[in-house]
Amino acid sequence: MADIDHFIDGARLWARHEALATFGATPAGGVDRPALSRAEIDARAQLMTWAAAIGLQPSTDDIANLFLRLPGRDPDLPPVLVGSHIDSQPTGGKYDGVYGVLAGLECLEAIVAAGAKPRRSIELVCWTNEEGSRFAPGMMGSAAFAGKRRLEDILAVRDADGVTVAGALRAVRAAENALAHRPLGGTPAAYVEAHIEQGPILDMRSIPIGVVTGIQGKRTFRVRIVGEENHAGTSPRSARKDALMDSVRIVSALRDTFADPDDIVRFTVGMFTVRPNAPSVVPSEVEFSIDLRHPDTSALARLGDQVAPICKANSLTCEAEIRELIHDPPLEFPGPLREKIRLAAAARGLGHMEIPSGAGHDARYLHYICPTAMIFIPCWKGISHNENERITPADALAGARVLATLVLGLAGE
Amino acid sequence: MADIDHFIDGARLWARHEALATFGATPAGGVDRPALSRAEIDARAQLMTWAAAIGLQPSTDDIANLFLRLPGRDPDLPPVLVGSHIDSQPTGGKYDGVYGVLAGLECLEAIVAAGAKPRRSIELVCWTNEEGSRFAPGMMGSAAFAGKRRLEDILAVRDADGVTVAGALRAVRAAENALAHRPLGGTPAAYVEAHIEQGPILDMRSIPIGVVTGIQGKRTFRVRIVGEENHAGTSPRSARKDALMDSVRIVSALRDTFADPDDIVRFTVGMFTVRPNAPSVVPSEVEFSIDLRHPDTSALARLGDQVAPICKANSLTCEAEIRELIHDPPLEFPGPLREKIRLAAAARGLGHMEIPSGAGHDARYLHYICPTAMIFIPCWKGISHNENERITPADALAGARVLATLVLGLAGE
Repeated sequence: MADIDHFIDGARLWARHEALATFGATPAGGVDRPALSRAEIDARAQLMTWAAAIGLQPSTDDIANLFLRLPGRDPDLPPVLVGSHIDSQPTGGKYDGVYGVLAGLECLEAIVAAGAKPRRSIELVCWTNEEGSRFAPGMMGSAAFAGKRRLEDILAVRDADGVTVAGALRAVRAAENALAHRPLGGTPAAYVEAHIEQGPILDMRSIPIGVVTGIQGKRTFRVRIVGEENHAGTSPRSARKDALMDSVRIVSALRDTFADPDDIVRFTVGMFTVRPNAPSVVPSEVEFSIDLRHPDTSALARLGDQVAPICKANSLTCEAEIRELIHDPPLEFPGPLREKIRLAAAARGLGHMEIPSGAGHDARYLHYICPTAMIFIPCWKGISHNENERITPADALAGARVLATLVLGLAGE
Repeated sequence: MADIDHFIDGARLWARHEALATFGATPAGGVDRPALSRAEIDARAQLMTWAAAIGLQPSTDDIANLFLRLPGRDPDLPPVLVGSHIDSQPTGGKYDGVYGVLAGLECLEAIVAAGAKPRRSIELVCWTNEEGSRFAPGMMGSAAFAGKRRLEDILAVRDADGVTVAGALRAVRAAENALAHRPLGGTPAAYVEAHIEQGPILDMRSIPIGVVTGIQGKRTFRVRIVGEENHAGTSPRSARKDALMDSVRIVSALRDTFADPDDIVRFTVGMFTVRPNAPSVVPSEVEFSIDLRHPDTSALARLGDQVAPICKANSLTCEAEIRELIHDPPLEFPGPLREKIRLAAAARGLGHMEIPSGAGHDARYLHYICPTAMIFIPCWKGISHNENERITPADALAGARVLATLVLGLAGE
C-alpha cells in the first residue's frame, strides 16, 4: 500500500459528493445541473472554495473549462491533468463526472497533506458541457481544448430556449469575473480520468477497479421530419402528411436494421419532440436524435451509413432532413498507462479487470493530444443518467487511491 | 332573399375576424389562443365591447362560458342559443370556432338593426375550451352546461404547466369581475352553430353551405409507458426498459390494426411527449394521445376496444397505463332543423349539400339537451388546426345569412 493512501480521506470524499449534489438537486434525489447554468456556476464556486483552502491556483479559458493547479517543482514542464466534468443530464445522478473531479481533488489534497512535491504541475480540470443535453453535442470543453472542434462553431450552438453557448458563457464569466484567464488548449504531459462505469459489469462481478481499455465509437444524428398540420377528425389518412407516423416508421426500420443478437450495437432515440403536440392535431413536425455506438470501426461505419437512406426511404409522406453531428471512431488507451493502473490496484490487493468504455468521456479528446488513461469504479446495477445512480464509499475510496498513485507517478515524485 | 340579408354586413364580419385574430396572433399569421389564457380574456373583452354597442346583456357561468343576450318579447321563454368558441389550437387559424361566434354576433346585430323583435331571447355564446389542447379533453364548457361532465372533475384538470382549470378560471374571473354571473346549465329552445368545415369537401365542390347531418363518434385515450432511464452508450438492449421503443411498437401496431382501405377510420397520435428527452439517455417515460373517430357506432366500439389490449401486448419491457378520456357515439341532428337550413340556402340560390362532421363540436353536447343544428361553410383545401386556415368573405357572408334566417325562425319573428 502506497504512503499516499494515508492521506486520502474517504469520508471527506463522500461528504463532498453530497455537498456538490445540493447544486441542482432534484426532489427525487438526483441532480439537474445543465452546462453553464446557475447551478453549475454555484457548484464551481464551491469547488474553488475547497481548492483555495489547499492553495490550488484557479483559472479558466475561452470555453469555461476550469483548471485548479498545484504547481510542480518544475512549473515549466507540461502538467499532468486529472479531472472530468460536473454538468449533468436533466435527471442525472450525483456521481457521473463528479466522481472524477472530486477524486482528483482528493488526490491533490492528499499530495499537499503528505508534503509530496511532484516535479510536474498537476491540474485538476472540470471540462465544460460533457453531457451535451443542454447544448449538443457534448464534450464541448475537451473537444475545444484538444482543437477537435472550432470555437466559433461551438459558440453558435443554441439550447432549447434559443440561448447560444456564447450567451451562456457571458453569464459564467460575469459570475466568475475575478477568475484568471488562460489561453484555450495546451500540451499536457498526460490526462487521467476516474469515472463510474455506467454499466453493470464491475458491479455484477464485485470488482472495484476497471482498467479502461478504450472507448467505443459513436455516431450521432439529428433527424427532422416535416409534414403538414391538420385536423385529427376531418383529414383522411390518404391526405395526411403525418410527421409522427413517418417518424414511427423510421424508428421501427432503424431498430430492425440495428437488431443485434450479440447485443453489442448501442442504438438509442433519446430525444423525440413533436410539434404542435396537441391531441387533436396531426403532427406537422418531429425532430429526433439517433445515438449509435459500436466498438468496431468498420461495423460503426457500415451501420451509421444506413441511417440517412432508411430515414429517406421511410418518409412516405413527409420531408426528411438528416444531419450527422458526431462521427468518433473507437479508440484504445496506451498499454503502459493501463499497466500502471493494474499495478496500483494489485499493490493494494484490489480486484481489477480490463473493461471497454461504452460511454463517451472527455478522455476521448485528450487521447488525441496526450497519453490518456481512465479508471472505472462500479456503479449499482449499471444504472446511470438516472437520479437513482449509486456507488459505495469503499469503491470511491479505492478508486481515489489508485488514481493518486497514477497521478503522482506521472507527475514525478 | 330574406329582408334580414340587407342588414348582414359582410365587410364588418370580415373585419371582425381580422380584429379578433390579433389576440394571440402568431408570426406565421395564425392564432395561439389557449382556453382561459390572457389572449382569450382579451378577445372576450373585445367581443363584449362589440356586444355592448348593440345592447346585448353579458353574463358568465361557473365554467366561464360567455353569454351575450338579446332579450325577446317574451323573455321567460327558453332562449335560442347561437355560437361556438374562440379558443384555438397552439398553431391554429383565424376561423375555427371564431366564425360561429362572429357570424352569430352579425345575426344579432342585423336583427337589432332591422328592428326585428323576436319572441324568444337569443343568446350568443362562447363555450369555454372547445379545443382541449391546453386542458384535455375539450368541449369542456358545453359538456358542463349540458350536464355531461361533472364540474368538480373538470376543475381539477391540469395543463402542461400544472395549472388547474380552477386556477385558470380564477384569473378569468378576476379580469372580468364586473360581469354578471348566472347558474351553470339551462334548457335552451334550440342551439345553432355555424363552423368552417375543416375538411375538403365543400371547397372541392365549390358549395358554400353544408347542412350538417351529424357528428362522427370519437374515442380518445391517454397512454403512459413507463420504463427506466439509462445511459445510451452503456446499457445493452437486452437490459433496457426503453419507453420510446415500446411506444413506437404500440403506435405501429395501432396503425396496422386501424388501417382502412375505405379511409373512413380517423386515427391520430397528436401528442407524444418523451422524458427526459435527452439524446444520450434511454427514455424512461412516454405519454401519448390516441384520437380515434368513426361515423358508425359499432365500428367505433369494436376498434376502440382494441386500444388497451394492443398497448399492453406491445409493451414488451415497460409498464403501460391506458386511460379512456372520451367515448362519444356518433350522433344525427334532427331532420326538421336540417330542412330549415336547406330552405334558407335554396331561397338565396346558394349551393348546399348534406355533410357529416368529422370534427367534434360543442353542438355535440347541446344536442343532448335541445334541438341542435350546424351549418358548415367551406375552408380552403380542408386545412384546419393550422395557421394557414383560410375562408372567403363571400362564403362567410352566405353562411351568416343562412344562420340569421334559421335563428330568427327559431326565435319566432
